[in-house]
Amino acid sequence: MRQSGRPRKASVDDAILSAVAALVVEHGYTRVTIDDVVNRAGTNKPAFYRRFRNLADTVPHLLARSHGTDDDIDTGSLLGDLNEVQRRQLLLFTDPVVVRGFAGWLADVDGHPDGGAAFLQGYLAPRRAFTRVILDRAVARGEIPDRADPAWIADLLTGPLLLRVVLPGLPPADEELAAKTVEAALTSLGWVRP
Amino acid sequence: MRQSGRPRKASVDDAILSAVAALVVEHGYTRVTIDDVVNRAGTNKPAFYRRFRNLADTVPHLLARSHGTDDDIDTGSLLGDLNEVQRRQLLLFTDPVVVRGFAGWLADVDGHPDGGAAFLQGYLAPRRAFTRVILDRAVARGEIPDRADPAWIADLLTGPLLLRVVLPGLPPADEELAAKTVEAALTSLGWVRP
Repeated sequence: MRQSGRPRKASVDDAILSAVAALVVEHGYTRVTIDDVVNRAGTNKPAFYRRFRNLADTVPHLLARSHGTDDDIDTGSLLGDLNEVQRRQLLLFTDPVVVRGFAGWLADVDGHPDGGAAFLQGYLAPRRAFTRVILDRAVARGEIPDRADPAWIADLLTGPLLLRVVLPGLPPADEELAAKTVEAALTSLGWVRP
Repeated sequence: MRQSGRPRKASVDDAILSAVAALVVEHGYTRVTIDDVVNRAGTNKPAFYRRFRNLADTVPHLLARSHGTDDDIDTGSLLGDLNEVQRRQLLLFTDPVVVRGFAGWLADVDGHPDGGAAFLQGYLAPRRAFTRVILDRAVARGEIPDRADPAWIADLLTGPLLLRVVLPGLPPADEELAAKTVEAALTSLGWVRP
């Protein structure tokens, strides 16, 4: 997703992403300008545009920096893995940057398909691919039958939490909701409590 | 949600909502102006502002006109009711107005809490309240135990479909996904196939 020719300083990347995060929380995504970002980060527009195409393009990097892509989860059991996936998704969907930034960012990438593609490739696809890894391991351990649909399980784990951050007026996602999604996923997968 | 003193012509309401729908599909929500809407509708701005505060305020009316609030569903069984809820939600989340308009509208109401409140009161809350009606009837018929959590069931039925329309790059919701949500809801509710 980066376009630079010459080496870049990681500290500038970090300063830019931290500035975006702070400004989104303070003002909401739609009111953040690149001028604000580079001023806050103590850098300049050319430095920004060597790293990112636009504000939307910072978002997958920002999310990956704060929340990872979950591809290091391996607790040794399906229950443990799904609980850990949801513990992290709960942190993601209650992160003030996501709460204050999500709607504006969505509208922004809606008009810039590149931003959506960067999000898909850099953030969403790896998370969804890792659901398959978790389920394949559970099949290999004999925890569930080999007929799992990873896309459905990813939709089931993420959809209800996403809904709470996206639709106006609903309470934020909480641990109870996350636990219910894990329970529903386990049942849907044919998992039987050992 | 309407602010008029004098009687309004329903035909003007309809013309405005139809104009909003057409323009959202053609240009995307964020590029639609009130000028465009009143020109397309063959009316004028005062007529618009007697009916709606702003563009975001038209959305709950538009959705209710096209998709209802589902409070007329009563098939006589829990399975039938949930299938019908999801059949309609699938129409909602694949409606071109929603696909092209949802992200922009979300960002818009994000900056106008009134728009979010109107959506909650006029559209979202009645749909979620009706989940309780459906589950209470199922309990009364002896189809499920009396420990259902209607908010969770609403999140479970809507979240995965919403995710497909909200996140960039995913395939649209389809009948298979809708059927899986119904199955997961029935299992979660302790329903046993008769």
